[in-house]
Parts: sequence; structure tokens; C-alpha cells
Amino acid sequence: MALKSLLKKIAFDQNGLVPVVIQDAKTKAVLMVAYMNKKALAKTLASGRTHFWSRSRNKLWSKGEQSGHIQKVRGIFYDCDADTLLIKVSQTGSACHAGYCSCFYRQINLNTLQSKVIGKKMFDPKQVYQSKTRK
Amino acid sequence: MALKSLLKKIAFDQNGLVPVVIQDAKTKAVLMVAYMNKKALAKTLASGRTHFWSRSRNKLWSKGEQSGHIQKVRGIFYDCDADTLLIKVSQTGSACHAGYCSCFYRQINLNTLQSKVIGKKMFDPKQVYQSKTRK
Repeated sequence: MALKSLLKKIAFDQNGLVPVVIQDAKTKAVLMVAYMNKKALAKTLASGRTHFWSRSRNKLWSKGEQSGHIQKVRGIFYDCDADTLLIKVSQTGSACHAGYCSCFYRQINLNTLQSKVIGKKMFDPKQVYQSKTRK
Repeated sequence: MALKSLLKKIAFDQNGLVPVVIQDAKTKAVLMVAYMNKKALAKTLASGRTHFWSRSRNKLWSKGEQSGHIQKVRGIFYDCDADTLLIKVSQTGSACHAGYCSCFYRQINLNTLQSKVIGKKMFDPKQVYQSKTRK
């Protein structure tokens, strides 16, 4: 009942999704943005670990299911339009499937507009993932 | 030329948009999520202040155009899939048109699933906005 009531509050889009900002609860770094449908949010709430809907693979996935780089939920927030979630997590390992702590590992130089890798590589994706499409 | 090259790197969706996470450069609070098209990103880069595409009003807008609560760009980052931006800003006033520092002013209790306002109201929107739809 409480879950049903909560799911009604969230403005899932025409595809049944909301974007979710994942922030490290400790460092406050923005780690990634992914998408949840109702089922992913329900699973996240029930398990205390983030679950998402993959738009490319068209399936539910849990963060760390292959890499072990899970995210324990510390706090869930929603915005003024109720169409975006912010979840603060404790991240095991690194959030990005490309091997970086955060998916936002490239910065745009505001003068030259060139981009540069500013993140530190924490692992070799080839060692962690069997398939490049898995996160 | 540099702008054209940069815009090619970003994976705008079928509507020509990317979600943009706005983070306070100083406090690291996630302030809001909004959307940019190519023009909004170009204007943001040219002016050093955030510009967005409003999906509800179907028009370009600059943050603070009505409230004066502008966001000065301190850093722009993009993620592994290049389909989401993270912009660190210096926020004047409050980010949320509802009167809070951050749009994520409501938290979901992980046990009861009830939501609660946890943000502090910084201003009365009626005093700042002529129209409720303006940010």
C-alpha cells in the first residue's frame, strides 16, 4: 500500500521511466545517471541496492550484478516535478563500467572546448566484464 | 569548429536533448536536473551561464531569467555514454523554483516509504515568479 502510494507520486515518463542521479553519499561525487521503471524502484526499495532499467538492453539490471560493484542505498530524494530521483549510495568499487570512479570522467575545457579525461582509471573493464554492454 | 566538434561528441536523444545534472561546485549538492539541446549547450558555453530547453514550455530558457537565480558555469563533464552532462555551478540564490536550495528537497523514508520535506525554504515563489511555470 505504501509502495503503491509512493509509485503514484513519481511522474514516470511516457516510457514508464525516470532518470536517477546516483551520488556518492560520502564524497558527494555524482557517480552516474541511469533510469528506473516502477519495478526497478520497487526492487531498489526492497533490497536496499540499486536496480535500473536498461534502455539499450531493454531489461532490468542490478548495479554490480556482474562486476560486484554494488551500490547500497543511503537516501532517496525526488525533485519538485517528481520526475527525477536522486539516490545517495555507498559505492563498492567503481561506478563506471569504463573503469572510472564516476561515469563523468571527461571534462570539457571551457576555453578550447576540447575534452580531457580527468578521472582516474580504477580497473580494467576487460578484466571485470565479459561483455562490453554489461554494467 | 571546436563547438561543432564538441556537439558531435554528445549523444543528444531522438528529441535532440540530453539530461543535465547541475551540481553546486562548492557544497557538491545536486541542485537540479534539466535538459539541453545543442542551442542551449552552445549558449551555456558562450555565456558561462546555464541555458536549458524547457520540455513543458517548448522553449529555450536561461536559469535565473526571471528570478535572478543564475548559475555560473564552473565545469562541464560528460559521461561514458556521452548522453548525460554534469555541470558544476556557482548558484546565485536558490536553484529550485519552489523556493528551496535544491530541487531534491523531499526524501523518501526507506522504512515507511513516506516522503518528507527535508529542504529549507529560502524564498516564497509567489514573491519571485509572476508565473508558476517559470523557473
